[in-house]
Amino acid sequence: MEIPPPVELKLPLIVPHKVLMGPGPSNAAPRILQALSQPVLGHMHPELFTIMDEIKKGIQYIFQTKNELTLAISASGHAGLEAVMCNLLEPGDTVLVLVNGIWGERAANIAERNGAVVQKLQKSNSNDNFSIIEIENAIKGYLPKLVFVVQGESSTGIYQPLDGIGEITRRYNCLLAVDTVASLGSVPMFMDQWKIDALYTGCQKIIGVPPGVTPISFSQKAHNVIFNRKTKIPVYYLDMTLLGQQWNCFEKNLPRLYHHTTSANLLYALREGLAIVADEELENVIERHQRCAERLYKGIELLGLEFYIEDEVKRLPSVTTIKVPKGVDWKNVVDYAMKNYKFELSGGLGPTVGKVFRIGIMGYNATPENIDKTLQILKEALAYSKNDSKL
Amino acid sequence: MEIPPPVELKLPLIVPHKVLMGPGPSNAAPRILQALSQPVLGHMHPELFTIMDEIKKGIQYIFQTKNELTLAISASGHAGLEAVMCNLLEPGDTVLVLVNGIWGERAANIAERNGAVVQKLQKSNSNDNFSIIEIENAIKGYLPKLVFVVQGESSTGIYQPLDGIGEITRRYNCLLAVDTVASLGSVPMFMDQWKIDALYTGCQKIIGVPPGVTPISFSQKAHNVIFNRKTKIPVYYLDMTLLGQQWNCFEKNLPRLYHHTTSANLLYALREGLAIVADEELENVIERHQRCAERLYKGIELLGLEFYIEDEVKRLPSVTTIKVPKGVDWKNVVDYAMKNYKFELSGGLGPTVGKVFRIGIMGYNATPENIDKTLQILKEALAYSKNDSKL
Repeated sequence: MEIPPPVELKLPLIVPHKVLMGPGPSNAAPRILQALSQPVLGHMHPELFTIMDEIKKGIQYIFQTKNELTLAISASGHAGLEAVMCNLLEPGDTVLVLVNGIWGERAANIAERNGAVVQKLQKSNSNDNFSIIEIENAIKGYLPKLVFVVQGESSTGIYQPLDGIGEITRRYNCLLAVDTVASLGSVPMFMDQWKIDALYTGCQKIIGVPPGVTPISFSQKAHNVIFNRKTKIPVYYLDMTLLGQQWNCFEKNLPRLYHHTTSANLLYALREGLAIVADEELENVIERHQRCAERLYKGIELLGLEFYIEDEVKRLPSVTTIKVPKGVDWKNVVDYAMKNYKFELSGGLGPTVGKVFRIGIMGYNATPENIDKTLQILKEALAYSKNDSKL
Repeated sequence: MEIPPPVELKLPLIVPHKVLMGPGPSNAAPRILQALSQPVLGHMHPELFTIMDEIKKGIQYIFQTKNELTLAISASGHAGLEAVMCNLLEPGDTVLVLVNGIWGERAANIAERNGAVVQKLQKSNSNDNFSIIEIENAIKGYLPKLVFVVQGESSTGIYQPLDGIGEITRRYNCLLAVDTVASLGSVPMFMDQWKIDALYTGCQKIIGVPPGVTPISFSQKAHNVIFNRKTKIPVYYLDMTLLGQQWNCFEKNLPRLYHHTTSANLLYALREGLAIVADEELENVIERHQRCAERLYKGIELLGLEFYIEDEVKRLPSVTTIKVPKGVDWKNVVDYAMKNYKFELSGGLGPTVGKVFRIGIMGYNATPENIDKTLQILKEALAYSKNDSKL
């Protein structure tokens, strides 16, 4: 062999144990890591189909939906966004994207790749959300086929309320798609009641499953749009007409389709993540996250720090953005926490780069003990950074 | 909550232990399952970047390539195929697909979704491979931008030799893409020497990693095509200009890009799968698979069974297709093995449905003991099926 075995692979794998209090991924519960290491099953084995059926019910529960076309994509949350766009949009269709952080920008980018005409509703300040009037005016103006909203912008920490948007999109006969990657489980979600047509979330945030599978659901209205396209769905891997058959979402007597090789082990983990939420019950999960956020807010105030988002009701409980104090290099703070405690605090992203710290409160990590530890480490790291800008 | 927690999720997860001797996934080695259950790391953590660098070197080794644009996609093998098509093809481009089973058909389907003009070179018999003259004539006739070949058709068990095709595609100034999902590690692969421009494999076959990550590599020539497109790459998730930056494949002083959230745990597993191959050394892995295949062939002959592919040199060592004897219902045989031994033998797929058994020899399962067990169970199941067509 011309190319020899790489020497790096002769050494053992070393994975440090960290506490991940950034905006995700969060630490997985031991029960989930244990599930991951179960033996592999084939993608057409009946035991795996049972697990997939249980996952579907678990997703219907956390989304509060009865949608039949509900499943998990074998890819990260970005693919959830891509699945919404490539299934619902055809070249020339207009999409209205609400942009107040990088996820709106990403959605616009992906919609453009699908040949859509992208209209953006943008805030001048990235630390504010959209009013229902702003949204209705934009819909009235552009008459889009699809409106795309991010419920929780993890780049800014902004929370976008959704109640009432679905009434407007129905009135103007357009579809409503919502990204809940960073928000689901920390704030309410009622997919059916709120008349949302496409919804996805990340598994590696509040559900606490390692990345790689993405829960997604489509309403009957979206289903009809997908099945009545003029052009082919451009991405085979995300084609809901086929994925839905693999996940047994259509007529129950259709045979399961071998669309792609699902990842049995990630599905075990997702099943367990959903089971943990079902055990605790969704309303309690949400309440726990909100209680932790309040505890964090109090501690941040006691430290004399300022919030990027002043109005508490506009803050996403799962991602808190805190202004970097003057004279402090954010990177020194983050590095201090990681170096001394293997503790992840995070800097900004997109519009907040260099301006904020981001603290995640997610799933297994959402405990008062972790909040207190976060505050103690943040305090120590800030003091250190003020005294010495070098690590 | 209108929709209550599903009762199914109140029960514990149960995963049976099986021996997977079908065409994949195969059983993962304990070292790989152990790696999977390590704590989650963030997608931008330096320890994970180190693991990604090691994976890149491991892929370069198993592909025998020095290509810089070498990485693992966070999705199953189908996404590898999709990545080849959506990065290399633009609407109106001609692609020549060699079809002798379902993977060629799937490639044609995906190329069409990308707006390409698809030309197929097809065998009248699915149990034969293509001669170099047939391939050259088709290239001469269609002058495609891209030629797509499956090295190992897991649906038929046919092995397509590649040596010499790259000389032709270079002469006609077209790109050569090869699917090695089911073949890599059981037959030789010299990506650079054979002048292959795009190559991907499955992780869940001979590398023995649970599905969900897909090694892929592009030549400098393919790289140039990707960076000089007239149209945008339609799929963000598979965009090699961005993925390459996340995997540090371009200029070394470019910062790592946050393109999507990679699955740390699947990357640990892939790193370990590649390390196992590097420890044993690729030529020994290939030899072990070929020795196991020969042992299986002898046993099959002793059982008086016939091969779907008569000519032994045309058989893929990793997937053997055996004709279902007259008077036997293939499903009874497969079900008997599963019911009594939790042992996976597989039926046909695509052109071989109902006609063959498929036996996989892959990775951790490729041992003489497993071959002997396969033969013993097959013998017993066939005897049972002849005596009684009911389970």
